[in-house]
Amino acid sequence: MFSLWSKKWNPKGRHCYVTGGSTGLGLALSVLLVKAGAHVSIVARNEEKLRNALEILEASRVDKNQIIKSYSFSLTAAESSAAALEAAYALFLCAGASKPKFFVEMTEEEMSQGMDNGYWVQAWTALAATKKMVNENAKGKIVFVSSTLGYMSFHALRGLADTLASELQLYGIDVHIFFATTMRTPGLEEEKKSKPAITSKIEGDDSPVSPESAAERILSGIQKGHVHIGGDFLTDVFRASTRGSAPYHNPSGGRCTWYNRLDRGPYLAMVG
Amino acid sequence: MFSLWSKKWNPKGRHCYVTGGSTGLGLALSVLLVKAGAHVSIVARNEEKLRNALEILEASRVDKNQIIKSYSFSLTAAESSAAALEAAYALFLCAGASKPKFFVEMTEEEMSQGMDNGYWVQAWTALAATKKMVNENAKGKIVFVSSTLGYMSFHALRGLADTLASELQLYGIDVHIFFATTMRTPGLEEEKKSKPAITSKIEGDDSPVSPESAAERILSGIQKGHVHIGGDFLTDVFRASTRGSAPYHNPSGGRCTWYNRLDRGPYLAMVG
Repeated sequence: MFSLWSKKWNPKGRHCYVTGGSTGLGLALSVLLVKAGAHVSIVARNEEKLRNALEILEASRVDKNQIIKSYSFSLTAAESSAAALEAAYALFLCAGASKPKFFVEMTEEEMSQGMDNGYWVQAWTALAATKKMVNENAKGKIVFVSSTLGYMSFHALRGLADTLASELQLYGIDVHIFFATTMRTPGLEEEKKSKPAITSKIEGDDSPVSPESAAERILSGIQKGHVHIGGDFLTDVFRASTRGSAPYHNPSGGRCTWYNRLDRGPYLAMVG
Repeated sequence: MFSLWSKKWNPKGRHCYVTGGSTGLGLALSVLLVKAGAHVSIVARNEEKLRNALEILEASRVDKNQIIKSYSFSLTAAESSAAALEAAYALFLCAGASKPKFFVEMTEEEMSQGMDNGYWVQAWTALAATKKMVNENAKGKIVFVSSTLGYMSFHALRGLADTLASELQLYGIDVHIFFATTMRTPGLEEEKKSKPAITSKIEGDDSPVSPESAAERILSGIQKGHVHIGGDFLTDVFRASTRGSAPYHNPSGGRCTWYNRLDRGPYLAMVG
């Protein structure tokens, strides 16, 4: 695996900050970063999970001087996100949860929570980190992790990542966004409770990706310099087309028809 | 103009509900709808502006039985959006404001307000309306109006519109979204105070579109059955590509290169 780090971006000796780092993809990514010699700080709410995660990270340590820390914070508010953030110049924003439901069945509370858990939980950290990095003239990396099932929050997050990818070029800060597919994580069990049957059918629930292979995919996408990193073939197509699922007319006279057909199918209706 | 109404969707005798209907595009759209014989209710916060708008709408009346009303409500909260909504089966969601700024310069308050004024102000009404229409088994129309300058809120709104366009097909409810360009509206003066110079340059501030022609463009897009309706050539390209502004790699080996070139230019960096 270490040949992966030979060029471009090498995490060795860098301060990496992973939100949602106590379980699932965030933890898998933290393990990879620790194994590559990075200093890693993980942030999550649940203290017991943080302790367990810290043990796993300690066991992955490759150098006695590596700094490995954990912080318990809720990240859906601006103040606590800023408070949680310490010196770190590679941010992996894995915190978040999605609760896929049909729109017509959503409550007002679920609408608000969806934006909190799918968007603000990453946006507040990104805002605090961007200001800090720009003020300190520090180069670095911000990596968003988005569920393709996050309804509107997914699009908001993608909009944020795209905007930052352009704007932060000025400051030498690289921005990436990973479009996650179904993963075998604790979050998946929560998702299943509300997910409409058609969504499970679209995803093919029977073969979820492991957090470990998703984590490798993220780091490999970063190595290649991709701003948009897809979780598998379907999200790659989704990333490549990014047209969403709306019925569609094309003023250019029908180019990109292969994508069009994929976009129009009802089987993509709930994705994004 | 009335030939416009001959086919497909004719507003005559329909109950139309226009948020942000007291000024700018919302008012221009309300005038068009009243002239076409619709019953029109406008919603906005400022009561004086509502009174002025009501006079203009009354002067446009074509039938003494037309119902023309105004309501003063703030629409950024779920409760007041639901309370404001009365029987109306064509909704034109024109309320909203944008304050374009560089991300790195944004305050936490501006971030929150951006999502309130660009997303929730329309999402809450859409949620209340969708539930009402589906419960009453009423066919209808929901038309979102989005500023292409709304940063993340723009993407969230587009995600909402796309999702609803698919999901609400089941219920015979049509969904459209208009990507507004710079218009000569009262909101424009507010925008100018914060807008980065590069954004003005991209937009070509010297030739903003009139609210009246934007309103006609919306109604014509609805007539043609377009889900995505562009405000001018630039937003049409943006609508057609919808890739956003991120640096880009293409796994299909370079199709759609014309779009790619447009997407990659720094002159689109702030759009969306």
